[in-house]
Amino acid sequence: SVNPDLGSERQTASFCVERLTALLDGGAEQTRIRRAVVEAIQSDPVFSRENQYFQTQNERYEAAVRKAVHLQKKMHEMGWTENGPEYKYIYRALSGDVAFLLHRVFMRSISVLGSDRQIAKWIPLATQHKLIGSYAQTELGHGTYLQGLETTAVFDTATQEFILNTPKISAMKWWPGDMGRSATHTVVFAQLYIHGKCYGIHPFIVQIRSLQDHSLCPGITAGDIGPKMNFEHIDNGYLLLKNVRVPRENMLSKFCEVQPDGTYVRQGSQQINYFTMTSVRISLISDEVLTPLKKACTIAIRYSVVRRQSKLKPGEQEAKILDYQTQQEKLLPQLAAAYAFHFTNDYLQELFDRGYREIQRKNFDMLPELHALSSGFKAMITQHCTAGVEICLRACGGHGYSLLSGLPSLYTKILASCIYEGENTILLLQTARFLIKCFMAASAGQPVPPSVTYLAAVKHGKCPAKNKLDFLSPDIYTEAYQHVAVRLTSSTAAKLQDLIQSGVKKHDAWNQCTVQLVQAAKAHCHYIAVKNFAETVEKLETKAGIQKIMKHLCDLFALHGIFSNTGAFLHDGYTSAAQMDMVTAAYLDLLAVIRKDAVPLVDAFDFTDQSLNSALGSYDGQVYQRLYEWAQKSPTNQMSPAYERYLKPLLHNTLSKL
Amino acid sequence: SVNPDLGSERQTASFCVERLTALLDGGAEQTRIRRAVVEAIQSDPVFSRENQYFQTQNERYEAAVRKAVHLQKKMHEMGWTENGPEYKYIYRALSGDVAFLLHRVFMRSISVLGSDRQIAKWIPLATQHKLIGSYAQTELGHGTYLQGLETTAVFDTATQEFILNTPKISAMKWWPGDMGRSATHTVVFAQLYIHGKCYGIHPFIVQIRSLQDHSLCPGITAGDIGPKMNFEHIDNGYLLLKNVRVPRENMLSKFCEVQPDGTYVRQGSQQINYFTMTSVRISLISDEVLTPLKKACTIAIRYSVVRRQSKLKPGEQEAKILDYQTQQEKLLPQLAAAYAFHFTNDYLQELFDRGYREIQRKNFDMLPELHALSSGFKAMITQHCTAGVEICLRACGGHGYSLLSGLPSLYTKILASCIYEGENTILLLQTARFLIKCFMAASAGQPVPPSVTYLAAVKHGKCPAKNKLDFLSPDIYTEAYQHVAVRLTSSTAAKLQDLIQSGVKKHDAWNQCTVQLVQAAKAHCHYIAVKNFAETVEKLETKAGIQKIMKHLCDLFALHGIFSNTGAFLHDGYTSAAQMDMVTAAYLDLLAVIRKDAVPLVDAFDFTDQSLNSALGSYDGQVYQRLYEWAQKSPTNQMSPAYERYLKPLLHNTLSKL
Repeated sequence: SVNPDLGSERQTASFCVERLTALLDGGAEQTRIRRAVVEAIQSDPVFSRENQYFQTQNERYEAAVRKAVHLQKKMHEMGWTENGPEYKYIYRALSGDVAFLLHRVFMRSISVLGSDRQIAKWIPLATQHKLIGSYAQTELGHGTYLQGLETTAVFDTATQEFILNTPKISAMKWWPGDMGRSATHTVVFAQLYIHGKCYGIHPFIVQIRSLQDHSLCPGITAGDIGPKMNFEHIDNGYLLLKNVRVPRENMLSKFCEVQPDGTYVRQGSQQINYFTMTSVRISLISDEVLTPLKKACTIAIRYSVVRRQSKLKPGEQEAKILDYQTQQEKLLPQLAAAYAFHFTNDYLQELFDRGYREIQRKNFDMLPELHALSSGFKAMITQHCTAGVEICLRACGGHGYSLLSGLPSLYTKILASCIYEGENTILLLQTARFLIKCFMAASAGQPVPPSVTYLAAVKHGKCPAKNKLDFLSPDIYTEAYQHVAVRLTSSTAAKLQDLIQSGVKKHDAWNQCTVQLVQAAKAHCHYIAVKNFAETVEKLETKAGIQKIMKHLCDLFALHGIFSNTGAFLHDGYTSAAQMDMVTAAYLDLLAVIRKDAVPLVDAFDFTDQSLNSALGSYDGQVYQRLYEWAQKSPTNQMSPAYERYLKPLLHNTLSKL
Repeated sequence: SVNPDLGSERQTASFCVERLTALLDGGAEQTRIRRAVVEAIQSDPVFSRENQYFQTQNERYEAAVRKAVHLQKKMHEMGWTENGPEYKYIYRALSGDVAFLLHRVFMRSISVLGSDRQIAKWIPLATQHKLIGSYAQTELGHGTYLQGLETTAVFDTATQEFILNTPKISAMKWWPGDMGRSATHTVVFAQLYIHGKCYGIHPFIVQIRSLQDHSLCPGITAGDIGPKMNFEHIDNGYLLLKNVRVPRENMLSKFCEVQPDGTYVRQGSQQINYFTMTSVRISLISDEVLTPLKKACTIAIRYSVVRRQSKLKPGEQEAKILDYQTQQEKLLPQLAAAYAFHFTNDYLQELFDRGYREIQRKNFDMLPELHALSSGFKAMITQHCTAGVEICLRACGGHGYSLLSGLPSLYTKILASCIYEGENTILLLQTARFLIKCFMAASAGQPVPPSVTYLAAVKHGKCPAKNKLDFLSPDIYTEAYQHVAVRLTSSTAAKLQDLIQSGVKKHDAWNQCTVQLVQAAKAHCHYIAVKNFAETVEKLETKAGIQKIMKHLCDLFALHGIFSNTGAFLHDGYTSAAQMDMVTAAYLDLLAVIRKDAVPLVDAFDFTDQSLNSALGSYDGQVYQRLYEWAQKSPTNQMSPAYERYLKPLLHNTLSKL
């Protein structure tokens, strides 16, 4: 039975939930396929996550391997293939709680960076799990700065082999998933040396464990790096290489090759080595970043209409906490962000697919823009979504802090996304470098990529809004965002030039501008996210209330961004103080409007209770009963030796006889 | 041997580290006592935290009980007493990793709320650990709104007993520490009923477990609430009461009493029941909030001079990451905040001690101000410090995400401080209510408490700063903070009145202003923190470079607050855009200045390696070696059954035969 406090929220939806779900999925047929996958996975007890919050790291790892292996059987049974329409829903249905994810990255590296011959050899082996792959890039002493990697691969002409080594402790590979305990092979990134000359980092396929008995191969030292905030199910590993030899054919050579005599031949850009990372950065947004935020919103919003606390009106029943303006102000902007970034992700996917097609044809023109956008948005979206999940957690008070709410594990997991695949500050500075370059080019009248043409069109106007309703006009707020992005980019470019002209060295000048460069990159991404959301809303069907509610969310996303960062908009007087008061009023009004549809808006994400795995977020809203029943199953309710050993002697006063 | 990259940082300190440590401790003699306690505790293997990051919740609980019991013995051996000068250092030396903390709150409740007779009976029993106490206030369905607690205590005149009940599931006590498995007694907060009339919540001493065999007492259902983000060592518990009878003498009756015939007699304010919470709120700041931030700063800053990544100058060695402006901008404001709040805490302690002396004399005049300040600062400091620890964690990249860095557990623990002892938003609204009330009173020319007299003196001037150096003048920035606090309070008071005058009901009007009320409360606390820091610096000794470096930190704390919230200062033109650019310039300049002393400034916190328990933060800075050695000890490097069960059959291709 559904908690009536939750049930009543669903009766007044202003839009058709099912239709919104289909929109998010990309069509009703996609929804059908996704649900079939979810049903098949979640009805299979091997994939259960029921005891997850009670398990140790070792138990989590074992379960993840069990699931990964069982998944192969399941796919076979169900007739799912890696190229079928079901495939992309499997990971989400498993809530990512499965091993061999780096096996996928291993395969992707080979597909992207390998020659046709290498692909023909390794991909079938990997597909059939005759080996288990990993991806060994990061080192103890080197993460973001790839050029600084210290692992070496020296070409030995005599034997036609590369000799791989870890010259010192900071060069040890550290973090690769699936490598600590599972992997038999990995792609090692190492500095290539031929005849004593360094050619920079290149990828090499290296076997690390025996296929017969899983023992470490000669010259290999490897193990697990131990406990982390989350990812207990993944065996992130370390790897030391001591004179490990691999044949010449093991260097991935789609774009560069070492010939038998040691001649080094490059085809295409060195940049392409980074392309796997660009691809991973974009692909992680949906499952690793958006899904956790959507889940957190679902949990926190459902809980906030079931939880009653304190009185809003004297003499009445205690109020649902979602009726408090402060609670709305915490949660509803996160909900709006989840929708905003859903559409940003669509935009990036489309851009990436286009870029990928070009690269296949060896046209690398789109790489800089793709790199800048994927870097900036990876940073921006992971940062916003991580903050959003944390807000959801805190908004549930004590119950949010219980692992049984599901929120702590969402938070500790999404937090990692701010760090892996490029540290966010470094990524934003990459975007900023692109922005400054394009700004200079645009100022000089040169052509620039589509996403930054706006930098050329610097306007010095004022925001034309006359009342708070004007701020519900996408033109008004999109223009304001654009103005801020241009201002921050141009003023930082000017500071940079001033410093250089005053004699500061270029690299020092750059460093002295980085705090402001990061601001400019964020403003650029925020502008594009707002613009894209507004354009998406414009194109939506007007039926079933969809466009209307999406318009509200778009407005909220935009106004929340202004409200939270008023200084950027006030600074040069583009927005006046009186206009800022209008923004505040329009923003606070919107909270009350969207609050009415809050539950239907999270219902549309269509998470099952199993995938939420939360005592607070279930579809029926029976929160307290579930918390109580679940807590009783905790291992902490078994007998502890602490009583006999310590408490009993204490209470029986042995101490007082000391 | 100390890593030379860390060692070199210590050679250029602009001040005497030892003298600063003494300042923080409150004198060199305090430093001596503290170090003696730390030495005694940390040299005792029973108190070791070495395996903490590898332990399960059950193991952590058992270890915490073992330590708590051993501590009694240790204190006896060392001659430490609860009233001695060593006592306050014990908890810090143990890093809080010990059981029976709620036993202390149990005792404090009785001391504050109990009659002399009750104190005489219970305190000796508790001191000698003839019982183990807890504090049962929060319920499944009720946290912040104490009036809504549902547990009942009905007075039975016939037997001179109170009958305690949990009328429904939401009334179940939930969260009390030490109650899940350890406690024999607890203070239960329940609605008092006499002859059918409710007198509101009152505290009752209830025995829940047998002193002989620890079995649950008749009518009691209790257990552990299961896994949480942190506090694995604490057995937070649940409690159901079914017709549990306690004698009339068990209601704590310093301020109100039920006489044998059921006559209810009150002495003093009902507010006094909240006083335990006020006291806990202030007392938690030092150990639970400031210490984690100081530790996080120590870890992240030491790591940031040892970690080299990427090149700042072409052709040179990779740079220490602390030399990047963006890294400075992450970490140094957190360091400044740690110092700022250290002095805020001194201010609050002094205020509290004064208030407590008055209350002992049954003068409750200071309660409202004390409540407002303790609420607001609890919220503000926990929020800043939690965000600060998270920033430190992220600033260490992947290694920060490893539990072995120590940062994840600092974060997951400090996060709870935003939730317990009053949810922060609710607390800020309590402060705001006080502010609005005082603002109205001050406007009407009535006297107001000292901390808010500034609200009466509304000035409509402009910031007089003429260049960036002017923003290093405490008068300039303190005034700016004051201006913003007054503006936000007065504008929200005006909005509130406008709404009410336009016919909106008072409670609705209040709700519609809460987002802005929270802003006003934060601005008030921020202003007091800045003012107090500036005044503290003013009084410091000028010798040994102490005052100078503290002045830099005070400036940084103040300017970071402006830089991060420019809109508030720009809004009404008090600060101009040109002045804001000066703030930015002054702020960024300061980062480079304080960076030089960053390591000595964290060294002054004087944490031992054991108390940091971090592979990144050790005094010698041997980061990579320590990570590698520690990881090898992880249980995840033991043999997993996953290989034989799942990996071997997979690799040996049983699946392909499906």
